[in-house]
Amino acid sequence: MNTSDILTTAHVMADAARAAILPHFRAVGLAAENKLADGFDPVTVADRAAEQAMRQVLAERRPEDGILGEEFGVSEGSSGLHWVLDPIDGTRGFMSGTPTWGVLIALSDENGPKFGMIDQPYIGERFWGGKGEVALEAQMTGPHGSGPLQVRGGRPLSEAVLFTTFPEVGSEAERAGFQAVEQQVKLTRYGMDCYAYALLAAGQIDLVVEAGLQPYDIQAPIAVIEAAGGIVTDWQGGPAHQGGRVLAASHADQHAEALAILRNVPAG
Amino acid sequence: MNTSDILTTAHVMADAARAAILPHFRAVGLAAENKLADGFDPVTVADRAAEQAMRQVLAERRPEDGILGEEFGVSEGSSGLHWVLDPIDGTRGFMSGTPTWGVLIALSDENGPKFGMIDQPYIGERFWGGKGEVALEAQMTGPHGSGPLQVRGGRPLSEAVLFTTFPEVGSEAERAGFQAVEQQVKLTRYGMDCYAYALLAAGQIDLVVEAGLQPYDIQAPIAVIEAAGGIVTDWQGGPAHQGGRVLAASHADQHAEALAILRNVPAG
Repeated sequence: MNTSDILTTAHVMADAARAAILPHFRAVGLAAENKLADGFDPVTVADRAAEQAMRQVLAERRPEDGILGEEFGVSEGSSGLHWVLDPIDGTRGFMSGTPTWGVLIALSDENGPKFGMIDQPYIGERFWGGKGEVALEAQMTGPHGSGPLQVRGGRPLSEAVLFTTFPEVGSEAERAGFQAVEQQVKLTRYGMDCYAYALLAAGQIDLVVEAGLQPYDIQAPIAVIEAAGGIVTDWQGGPAHQGGRVLAASHADQHAEALAILRNVPAG
Repeated sequence: MNTSDILTTAHVMADAARAAILPHFRAVGLAAENKLADGFDPVTVADRAAEQAMRQVLAERRPEDGILGEEFGVSEGSSGLHWVLDPIDGTRGFMSGTPTWGVLIALSDENGPKFGMIDQPYIGERFWGGKGEVALEAQMTGPHGSGPLQVRGGRPLSEAVLFTTFPEVGSEAERAGFQAVEQQVKLTRYGMDCYAYALLAAGQIDLVVEAGLQPYDIQAPIAVIEAAGGIVTDWQGGPAHQGGRVLAASHADQHAEALAILRNVPAG
């Protein structure tokens, strides 16, 4: 496994996605807005252009790998590895001009992600890391410069900062499960999309609880958080890379405390 | 009224606040976190340092103006004008590492703000504008470069994007009023602090509904939004610069639709 080539390929892909997306971000605002209010959807255009740009990089650099992309589905490969791409995670944030959406890139096998990257093009922040056969120190680069990513030390649930996309996402039972965790923590914040996972890997927050996720929403965050020392599972403590209900924590003790609440939420 | 000196002074103040705050933002995360987990509060330190830095700029450049600051209260002046300063609006966002807090600077007389500036130091984004005697075109600068700020055209409430700090803020009656507006709009997003007002001025969103605000939370946003063509009132349609309940809208029609709902919320 050529980890150096994997990392370089991911950076080239993220750079290509940035170039494809940024001309569309906030483009319908300001004076241009009225001209384009005819049903034109900048998110879809940017999504597709970014995934195509990333697929082009893979076609040139790693044609043997498979691809699972949000916009263009599955492309089979022969290497036993596949790239999992979400060109814009956080569409509602993107549409609202908030800089908390991201480009998600993971490299996975049938057991889940081995490498992940979260990129926020407008701020110019990038978070990545790998594990197992693609062991790569978790790192970030952004306005403050570059440095290692490390989750913060364990604090009890009563001192924890929790993020989620709720109250917008999830079934009634899932929302009730979330609220039961929320009642135990110090501070809850909303609406950060994939950026919350990056903040957890960067040691800024303690927990993310979500539901209704797709595999391409969570595979990159899993790899980045695990490389930074954190834990990501579903609400039963099992693997989360197929999406659905997700619990991410910076420490095993917090994870166990939250899991004890969430595992009581009925399935379905 | 020397509008050029007012604008230059505000830029110098915002630059000074950036330099005071940024060393503290996310500083307790990463590897340093455990060493500092002894009750040290980076928000308070950064808040105070930034307000002191801004007060120093005013002492040198405009000693005749009064000051109302979140951290150090009222300083009387002789010019009939006073600067209204919130060194970090969005403390919970700051503590969580999200780049959606801001430095708020307004210049006001007894009738309310004439000039406002919203600065997001980590992203490097700044929004400003003035009206009345301090008429200054609403503008922004950031990762995309510089340009004018203009609210977007009116769309019916059913097509509007609404932002708020709710569900965290407000009394039970205020929350019910907010939810009644929320049920009419296309999309609601949470947790952006003062950044939501900047997005409204930038033509990205349509409405912000808040409650429990202080004067220093809202005076800068009022001036920026009004200079960009928007409307800010309280929930009765009156002036909002004393804080409390706030309704900001990009267009008179949306404002009227939302106000018809919010004005039914009982006082107190």
